[in-house]
Amino acid sequence: MRILVNERGAQRLLARHLWVFRRDVLSGPETPGLFPVYWGRRFLALALYNPQSDLSVRAFRFHPAADPAEALLENLDRALLRRREALEREPQGGFRLAHAEGDLLPGLVVDYYAGHAVVQATAHAWEDLLPRVAERLKPYAASVLAKNDAKVRGLEGLSLYVRPLWGEVPERVTVREGRIRYLVDLRGGQKTGAYLDQRDNRLLMERFSGERALDAFSYAGGFALHLALGFREVIAVDSSAEALGRAEENARLNGLPLRTVEANAFDFLRSLEKAGERFDLIVLDPPAFAKGKKDLERAYRAYKEVNLRALKLLKEGGILATASCSHHLTEPLFYQMLAEAAADAHRALRVVEKRGQGWDHPVLLNHPETHYLKFALLEVL
Amino acid sequence: MRILVNERGAQRLLARHLWVFRRDVLSGPETPGLFPVYWGRRFLALALYNPQSDLSVRAFRFHPAADPAEALLENLDRALLRRREALEREPQGGFRLAHAEGDLLPGLVVDYYAGHAVVQATAHAWEDLLPRVAERLKPYAASVLAKNDAKVRGLEGLSLYVRPLWGEVPERVTVREGRIRYLVDLRGGQKTGAYLDQRDNRLLMERFSGERALDAFSYAGGFALHLALGFREVIAVDSSAEALGRAEENARLNGLPLRTVEANAFDFLRSLEKAGERFDLIVLDPPAFAKGKKDLERAYRAYKEVNLRALKLLKEGGILATASCSHHLTEPLFYQMLAEAAADAHRALRVVEKRGQGWDHPVLLNHPETHYLKFALLEVL
Repeated sequence: MRILVNERGAQRLLARHLWVFRRDVLSGPETPGLFPVYWGRRFLALALYNPQSDLSVRAFRFHPAADPAEALLENLDRALLRRREALEREPQGGFRLAHAEGDLLPGLVVDYYAGHAVVQATAHAWEDLLPRVAERLKPYAASVLAKNDAKVRGLEGLSLYVRPLWGEVPERVTVREGRIRYLVDLRGGQKTGAYLDQRDNRLLMERFSGERALDAFSYAGGFALHLALGFREVIAVDSSAEALGRAEENARLNGLPLRTVEANAFDFLRSLEKAGERFDLIVLDPPAFAKGKKDLERAYRAYKEVNLRALKLLKEGGILATASCSHHLTEPLFYQMLAEAAADAHRALRVVEKRGQGWDHPVLLNHPETHYLKFALLEVL
Repeated sequence: MRILVNERGAQRLLARHLWVFRRDVLSGPETPGLFPVYWGRRFLALALYNPQSDLSVRAFRFHPAADPAEALLENLDRALLRRREALEREPQGGFRLAHAEGDLLPGLVVDYYAGHAVVQATAHAWEDLLPRVAERLKPYAASVLAKNDAKVRGLEGLSLYVRPLWGEVPERVTVREGRIRYLVDLRGGQKTGAYLDQRDNRLLMERFSGERALDAFSYAGGFALHLALGFREVIAVDSSAEALGRAEENARLNGLPLRTVEANAFDFLRSLEKAGERFDLIVLDPPAFAKGKKDLERAYRAYKEVNLRALKLLKEGGILATASCSHHLTEPLFYQMLAEAAADAHRALRVVEKRGQGWDHPVLLNHPETHYLKFALLEVL
């Protein structure tokens, strides 16, 4: 049982991209699973395979192995080993234990929140392996929840469910992040606003202090809470009342003052500018404006617009902390957009730091899809 | 006395680029100095001016000031203030105190080596201000040397000389960098291999240990010395016997073993590959292959070639630490080049860190010429 790919598919794997699409598969097994990929008689990789999915082949290893499932789980062991020191240092913290393709674990995400693991699988071949995944996580987590309710599972022919794989899964846990604590609803997942990819960027905020800070697109207040440690007044603006409710709950948990404003961030920034308001630090962490390539031009304008607005609100010496999590707005485009916004705002900006997703969300140079988060810290001169 | 620029020049300054070329200057004083720049009746900036130079106008401030010289020296004060904490923490270290345009000090570089400052001025208007620059440096340095022997001064109509501005300038000083010390010949300047822009990247090397490491284009062994702390065998290869002599001297100073090889790095990497040799870590810090835009295509191929060679020599789990200091090979091109080398070498690479020049070599988003150093830390999966 092997997968045969055409030359285009072979060239992708030889270049160590992990994906081969169905159109480049010549033949393969009829059922999902783990199989070797060949180009003629040449072995290329071991891969997760799903004949039903457009994304048929997802490589996880480029050498043969006697037991493909064990080889795949060894990639998980390696990913866990790389996080062990961080978990030991910060057992009540939040970390991504497995970052799918970035950890050579295509379609598998495992997050860790204060001693509890949440697993999400979006490739069919993982389904039978989940008990073994939970087994590997036992030394690290008191419970393991399978949060398999992502719609994309439908494309793989998988059902949607949320159920414990191991241990007692609490409804909510309190996660430590630097000098802040925040609540995570484990079954709620991303909707809690616990975007672990920005953890280290949020922690950076504890470096700064001053009079007034603004967190635009604040969601549950991740950045705002760290800012509230050092700024006299912090405003969190978001269009979701529910998210702001969580932000307020987190602020109370930390005993920190936080002013929340339910508004469209673009409109709110414009109204602040009209009112002549000024800030020492502004965070811009918008949702992905570009969901697909076709949205890119419109999204680029939206990113530029919101950054331009923020730059006009900053005092001299002020800090802009600005992000984009849209894969389609590449890193070069992100910095081009910022340079244009700076030019249009007539503001000279010093680059304090260029950053991205945290170290526990690894990027593979050969697989650009693993890189999505851009984060720049800029000082107005 | 004012400088009048045309619309193109004005648009550059409004976008907070610092330079206006002579072709965009409508009129100005006949002698070099510090003057306000206008577009019609609109004030744009204060600038260093030299009617003789192609690069006539170099802005340093975008608000008027009663005393332009004092305003310029205040930019120096701010630059020094930003380094103060680092100098207090590491008085025997090496730091760049003033990074020209990056610190809004166009044409002025000040380096600090273990208590002694070296000043290089490449814009005419600085010449009369050098005694005041030395005065500002007194609280930080026991001596100040003017190392004004850069050929580019000729284009500004300035003479070439090296002479003390203040205090007793020693011939050589010993600079501390992490767990390493190295010798700097103050009058020799860059030829000592003390490239401060790579300091923090060199320090990163102290994180790693293993069997064999290679420092290609080693110059005076900056990276190699830090590697020698953690690797059983370190080879430094360079085409300059003089540079390798310095590397050996520095190795003796630190009591560390170092094998030096005088060779063309390309040829040497090829011969290692033929001999089937393997390394745990390879540093590539080549000189700027692209000196100008016209060299870019050839330079791109050379960068790719040398990175490809190094990738083939690395063990699984090995680390490539690779740099380019050529401004013309932009950051996006640098990463494109690395992705192509990785694809051609059939090696999957995890991005451990994307870095650049150290924090004491600031980059202005509006003035891309301030950004030149790219540095990537990559792990072979």
